[in-house]
Amino acid sequence: MQAEIIAVGTEILLGQITDTNSPLVARLLATLDIDTYYQTVVGDNRTRLLSALDIAQKRAELIITIGGLGPTPDDLTKQTVAEFVNQKLIEDQVALDKILDYHARTQRPMSENNRLQALYMADGVPLKNEAGFAVGCFYQNPNVPDILLLPGPPWELEPMLVKHALPLLAEKYQQSGVLFSRVLRFYGIGESRLVTQLANLIEQQTNPTIAPYAKAHEVTLRITAQAATRDEAIKLIDKMEADIMLEVGDYFYGYGDDFSLEECVGQLLIDSNLHITAAESMTAGLFQSTLGKVAGISQVFDGGFVTYSPATKVALLDVNAEIIGQHGVVSEATACAMAQGAKDKLGTDIAISFTGVASGELESQPVGTVWIGIAFEDEPVEAVLYHFGTERQKNRERAVMAGLDLVRRKILGLPLVKYK
Amino acid sequence: MQAEIIAVGTEILLGQITDTNSPLVARLLATLDIDTYYQTVVGDNRTRLLSALDIAQKRAELIITIGGLGPTPDDLTKQTVAEFVNQKLIEDQVALDKILDYHARTQRPMSENNRLQALYMADGVPLKNEAGFAVGCFYQNPNVPDILLLPGPPWELEPMLVKHALPLLAEKYQQSGVLFSRVLRFYGIGESRLVTQLANLIEQQTNPTIAPYAKAHEVTLRITAQAATRDEAIKLIDKMEADIMLEVGDYFYGYGDDFSLEECVGQLLIDSNLHITAAESMTAGLFQSTLGKVAGISQVFDGGFVTYSPATKVALLDVNAEIIGQHGVVSEATACAMAQGAKDKLGTDIAISFTGVASGELESQPVGTVWIGIAFEDEPVEAVLYHFGTERQKNRERAVMAGLDLVRRKILGLPLVKYK
Repeated sequence: MQAEIIAVGTEILLGQITDTNSPLVARLLATLDIDTYYQTVVGDNRTRLLSALDIAQKRAELIITIGGLGPTPDDLTKQTVAEFVNQKLIEDQVALDKILDYHARTQRPMSENNRLQALYMADGVPLKNEAGFAVGCFYQNPNVPDILLLPGPPWELEPMLVKHALPLLAEKYQQSGVLFSRVLRFYGIGESRLVTQLANLIEQQTNPTIAPYAKAHEVTLRITAQAATRDEAIKLIDKMEADIMLEVGDYFYGYGDDFSLEECVGQLLIDSNLHITAAESMTAGLFQSTLGKVAGISQVFDGGFVTYSPATKVALLDVNAEIIGQHGVVSEATACAMAQGAKDKLGTDIAISFTGVASGELESQPVGTVWIGIAFEDEPVEAVLYHFGTERQKNRERAVMAGLDLVRRKILGLPLVKYK
Repeated sequence: MQAEIIAVGTEILLGQITDTNSPLVARLLATLDIDTYYQTVVGDNRTRLLSALDIAQKRAELIITIGGLGPTPDDLTKQTVAEFVNQKLIEDQVALDKILDYHARTQRPMSENNRLQALYMADGVPLKNEAGFAVGCFYQNPNVPDILLLPGPPWELEPMLVKHALPLLAEKYQQSGVLFSRVLRFYGIGESRLVTQLANLIEQQTNPTIAPYAKAHEVTLRITAQAATRDEAIKLIDKMEADIMLEVGDYFYGYGDDFSLEECVGQLLIDSNLHITAAESMTAGLFQSTLGKVAGISQVFDGGFVTYSPATKVALLDVNAEIIGQHGVVSEATACAMAQGAKDKLGTDIAISFTGVASGELESQPVGTVWIGIAFEDEPVEAVLYHFGTERQKNRERAVMAGLDLVRRKILGLPLVKYK
């Protein structure tokens, strides 16, 4: 099957934003054996979108439009596609209720154009937008290629595509059998190293297929199998997963599109009823706020410390000023003293500490040098040294991920891998 | 002038890499007043590239191809473009010498296909590749649109474009006048409301143009003017900016593509030498870690508190337990006590506090209810009530943005707008 992606947005055309949606859509369509031969970007312009649709209908069996489903006058994809196929737009009650409810609850004035986001093509299938208001749509009509309308914001597009559009396409296009996929998540190994270690498996892949995807600070592998039944597909995937684990199992931490390292660690903490706190210098609260994303974390997380300056390390954590004076702020000794201090202050089972050089240089230590300390139950407090990169915010994020993995490994009794 | 970009590469089509070249080319072409109405991605396939060229020649005066200039069999852009315009390829001596010299110097065996990289279109202008071997080309022929061939690797494309292609285009197209733009950043107003309030200006826009763009929790407006000189363009922009400010100036906080609310507030704090701390409940460190993104923030930020549970509010901030008992955790009184407690503990000029319902329900208060407290210099501590949405992480992010804006308004002596 041949598809064509049309990304709609003047801001893409002007180069103000980079279109990361089209690659994602192409990758995920490929798991359904749908090939993309052309991708087009067109501005928020009715005439030129009509022309792009006209060209696409001659060379594709499925057209995917991205963007232009919002409430503003320059959002005209739905209206233009509807004109193109001579179909009218109708309101999706689920989407409309969400919009009405939001405005009522937040006491915001609702303008008439907000309702536009609830429109989809009559005779089409509305696709739920879990992270926004604009409803998507899948539309079939024997006279034109099938058309899939997706929203532009990536955080809206991805869940709609994965949860709603792909299963629908799989159902519509799979004549016999089922297509089933499983996502494995890895931390601590880069995409290129993972691909190298799995080179044989990737080269020989037919069914299941393996699709690697680098996310921020982690890599996922989507294994997709086609089979007569779901059970058979799962068996194929189980076999492939076992082969993968032999090669890179040390870096595996969990399953699923919506999982994350913080979710994994948060659940481990909650399930083990282990209370945690943190003393953060270079991360300035990023570890705690990341853990705070996990629903229910309050069962095991009462609070903690941001100790950015040496003085607050002493004042809030009772770190001995002589330790800092003798070893420096970015040192094993200070990291250990911070973790121990935090643990003692709040009487938790675990305390983690972060001290490092996010940017510039500190105490003649190069940027990217980070010590993470961990005080875990009655074990002796220890600290691990990391060498990250040169970008301030990335260094802070990488430190948080490394810290989460450290906690995970401690809880599971795994060796502490040092990621350089 | 209208241009069309054709990026050639199966790896882009498959989503294995994200095309960052097209946005760069579009942005830089815009500085020469060359508009891009369409961008196309096509695989390494002669037939489909010919088809894309045929479509492009009907709608563009300049076609820019990106990629496919290398030595491997799937690099076929040059050959295909030459076929398309019925022109032959000839060797560029400068490029060939570079290739020969490299192989001699490194004693690497040179295969015949390495010479392909020195080919360019006869009657065209070869464009030097400073970071690689494949020569680029600018080709003019009265029967077809002008064609610019650029290499695919971004580190080769950018220098060729900036140093060689753009100056040549500017000379060929005899640019008169300049195009200049300015970005205004707004917080506290949604894109649809901003567009509604600016409807008249947007409808009447010709020169300058106004382009709104929604970013996470904020909106930007790009004003672009065309004029004979830069000064005249700036005058046009100043006038438009003044008109915009009359309508939505309350929500404006700064200029530029790379600016952010935390950068704005961080700089204000540093410039005013105002020390800040925070006591964070529902945001769990997100305010402090956001402020931690700002380089140099350690001058005014020593650290602070994450007080997730009522017990830590009492233990770390000396909040009176009776206040929490009487008014609840999510209350004006508790927010004020948290801010005052943090300010007293660390002796700062400013302390901000966050307490609210990120998800679920707390003390019969609906999700999205947030109190932000602020203790500012010697002013009486106060707290502002917000009603956000239902998504846990978005509520936390919105609270942080609201808190940053609160600090900004306090420092600048602006009224505290309550964003619902």
